[in-house]
Amino acid sequence: MAKESFVEQIADIEKDFPQWYTDVVRKTQLVDYGPVKGTMVIRPYGYAIWENIQRELDARFKATGHKNAYFPLLIPMSYFTKEAEHVEGFAPEVAVVTHAGGEELAEPLAVRPTSETIIGTMYSKWLQSYRDLPILINQWANVMRWEKTTRPFLRTSEFLWQEGHTVHASAEEAMDETMRMLGVYKEFAENCLAIPVITGRKTEKEKFAGAVATFGMDAMMKDGKSLQAGTSHYFGQNFAKAFEIKFLDRDGAQKYAYTSSWGVSTRLIGALIMAHGDERGLVLPPKVAPEQVVIVPVAAKKGGVMEKCAEVRASLERAGVRVILDDSDNSPGWKFNEWEMKGVPLRIDLGPRDIEEGKAMIFRRDTLSKEAYALEGLADTVSALIESVQKDMLETARARRDERIVYADDMDGILKGVEGGNFVKAGWCGCRACEDKIKEKTAATARVYAEGETSEVCAVCGKKAEHTVIFARAY
Amino acid sequence: MAKESFVEQIADIEKDFPQWYTDVVRKTQLVDYGPVKGTMVIRPYGYAIWENIQRELDARFKATGHKNAYFPLLIPMSYFTKEAEHVEGFAPEVAVVTHAGGEELAEPLAVRPTSETIIGTMYSKWLQSYRDLPILINQWANVMRWEKTTRPFLRTSEFLWQEGHTVHASAEEAMDETMRMLGVYKEFAENCLAIPVITGRKTEKEKFAGAVATFGMDAMMKDGKSLQAGTSHYFGQNFAKAFEIKFLDRDGAQKYAYTSSWGVSTRLIGALIMAHGDERGLVLPPKVAPEQVVIVPVAAKKGGVMEKCAEVRASLERAGVRVILDDSDNSPGWKFNEWEMKGVPLRIDLGPRDIEEGKAMIFRRDTLSKEAYALEGLADTVSALIESVQKDMLETARARRDERIVYADDMDGILKGVEGGNFVKAGWCGCRACEDKIKEKTAATARVYAEGETSEVCAVCGKKAEHTVIFARAY
Repeated sequence: MAKESFVEQIADIEKDFPQWYTDVVRKTQLVDYGPVKGTMVIRPYGYAIWENIQRELDARFKATGHKNAYFPLLIPMSYFTKEAEHVEGFAPEVAVVTHAGGEELAEPLAVRPTSETIIGTMYSKWLQSYRDLPILINQWANVMRWEKTTRPFLRTSEFLWQEGHTVHASAEEAMDETMRMLGVYKEFAENCLAIPVITGRKTEKEKFAGAVATFGMDAMMKDGKSLQAGTSHYFGQNFAKAFEIKFLDRDGAQKYAYTSSWGVSTRLIGALIMAHGDERGLVLPPKVAPEQVVIVPVAAKKGGVMEKCAEVRASLERAGVRVILDDSDNSPGWKFNEWEMKGVPLRIDLGPRDIEEGKAMIFRRDTLSKEAYALEGLADTVSALIESVQKDMLETARARRDERIVYADDMDGILKGVEGGNFVKAGWCGCRACEDKIKEKTAATARVYAEGETSEVCAVCGKKAEHTVIFARAY
Repeated sequence: MAKESFVEQIADIEKDFPQWYTDVVRKTQLVDYGPVKGTMVIRPYGYAIWENIQRELDARFKATGHKNAYFPLLIPMSYFTKEAEHVEGFAPEVAVVTHAGGEELAEPLAVRPTSETIIGTMYSKWLQSYRDLPILINQWANVMRWEKTTRPFLRTSEFLWQEGHTVHASAEEAMDETMRMLGVYKEFAENCLAIPVITGRKTEKEKFAGAVATFGMDAMMKDGKSLQAGTSHYFGQNFAKAFEIKFLDRDGAQKYAYTSSWGVSTRLIGALIMAHGDERGLVLPPKVAPEQVVIVPVAAKKGGVMEKCAEVRASLERAGVRVILDDSDNSPGWKFNEWEMKGVPLRIDLGPRDIEEGKAMIFRRDTLSKEAYALEGLADTVSALIESVQKDMLETARARRDERIVYADDMDGILKGVEGGNFVKAGWCGCRACEDKIKEKTAATARVYAEGETSEVCAVCGKKAEHTVIFARAY
């Protein structure tokens, strides 16, 4: 049977999650491996998800006053050395252009791993007076970080992302921006990706190279591991001083500005896959699914079936639904399996008997449930179902995650917690040695501070706790 | 006066067109120079034009059945050598990554100058059967060509573009695609950019490296020079054979496919500037202008003026107009000059007396004319004016260009023609020597064949003409 032939292609999600992931991204044609190690080709089905992510995020960035721009890919290597922590963090991962136009270059050029240094250089030219502030610019671009171990979407030598870079007159405004964009990410992750996220400040060890403070957004994957889905950084005056980003203030004095940056990447597609996928493959939330509905004709050659399918498609399109009619020669069973694997939120099965009875069967990918609905007013029904699926997927993911957040008082508790596929909340004294020890013993890292929670003592050394931290094994 | 201070910033368009161009792109903040020679920073005002171009083109690509994808930036150098003409054409301009992750790479990697080779490699993996055809994929990306002489938008070492890459079962289908997309470009250039273009086949000398035939789209700039604004290439089986792009046909035989590619780039922004700009700066067609309307309050502190301006803005926004209200502290005169320089299609001046009389003055940037309109129903008036400006700009540019297309029978005629800032139509025998001679003597190149026209003899050698060719000096 066709069903088997598809299901066989994907490893068992319970038994081998990493292989399940690899199978799903390849078999659903989200992605393929590029010829250069660690690179990926984002195929049309995967890229359509990225386009939907871009559209949703871009609207939010513009609504919060940001404009897009584009800065060069190649950055003189010397720029990286201007901010000490930054060069230490990024130099080892950089790809370097040494020759161009048939000649060796006088100075090697980095393919951008991130753009603080080149954007900072331009801002120092553009910024004159307090009237020019704030500068609120975002860039959609490709970046490159030469990683040893790579996996499609999660960690690739080249990836697509957006990076917002802003400049402000005061520390307070820059911090407000940092938190505002973290909030935008959280709202987007929950309402568009249907992924509940935990946001909070990161430890010194885990922060961005060159930041005063990094705030992260972590999501739980189905194997209980965490995926950092976005970050927002407060730089204070670090980059302003390194790149001479200064302005003439109202009081006539030249002052260094305060900057921030924030980014999310094609990693979000990996998060979608691992937060919602199941034994049959992808489960996509409607807001970012390439197709929200697939129509599968049953007994397509019977008179009137294809006509009715086309009619339903047209009515859905008019209602603004992204819909595809699968009129290929494959059997209905084959089609059911293919579109389930591809995670299309709703499937409408339409055969001669349905048409006769004035109804259609609608299959929900998220709940695997099937129900008959009247053909009359079907576009409204489908629009309402799309909203339900979007909402229910978030709540299902949230319930699953909340069940898996546990507390621990000591190292043994942390280890048991993460081995059981949980996020573990534990007290931490704030010292690097204890943080390192947890990683060494449990392979878990400090994800973010659990905001608003206070533990009494550090789970490692027993000294007074400075923070309650969420520990997890992470992608 | 404020007026002077602005106008002084831009060189005289009649006396020094190149300097006028440089002044306009910098002073209007479309672009800035990047730190690496030949690179540009596309600033928010310039990037907003690119976003509008992207949105319009992307809708057209999707309407003609194409999907977007993303292929890696880095291409193994060996790929280029697989198609002999292609490597010869692009190798000298390539930027090369030789080191990454702190180590020297086993094989140097090219930063893509164009993606036929890497996309062809992936297509050869993906394509199995005639059922998989056609493959219709487009990519929005950055590319890099190390040029000796660079100018913002026109020729930069890095630029943004789209490249469509398609695969077909037959030569006829691939050629149909090549011509279809050339047609899409032409319709877009005329209806969105308001730039009349001449499309046609290019000579062997001017074609894309590796193509069987290249079709170009040329536009006349205000100095009479030509700008190639887009190209569409028919590859026959050249790349299919070089990259093993084969499929199992209906008849059970393995066959090489036929491919095409087509692209336009951020060069189009250069075309916009030089096709429409005038002594005051930019003149932007409404469809791609970042702002279609600017509202300038006159005597803004008088009671009710700012309120009325905000009301007008809200009504225009509701009508889907991109509108900005300039509520800065600058004087109205300063604002008039700034927004004229920035090329905003319509300006609405609104002062206490206008409000009293229930009218507003609307200034048209394209015709420099000013007229009073009733405040009642202003959104409809503005929408209609936007359509008129869009249409009139195309017709004005078309009339200007058509006046400047001349015929020549001999080399002297070609020289006089191009020196007078014209496109020159002349007969050509088809041989490289005559084509080279024209370039040497007149600095003009063969732009495209004048489709449907036939000259009797070659303007150089007097032998029988094979084509009528449009010669022009070109960017």
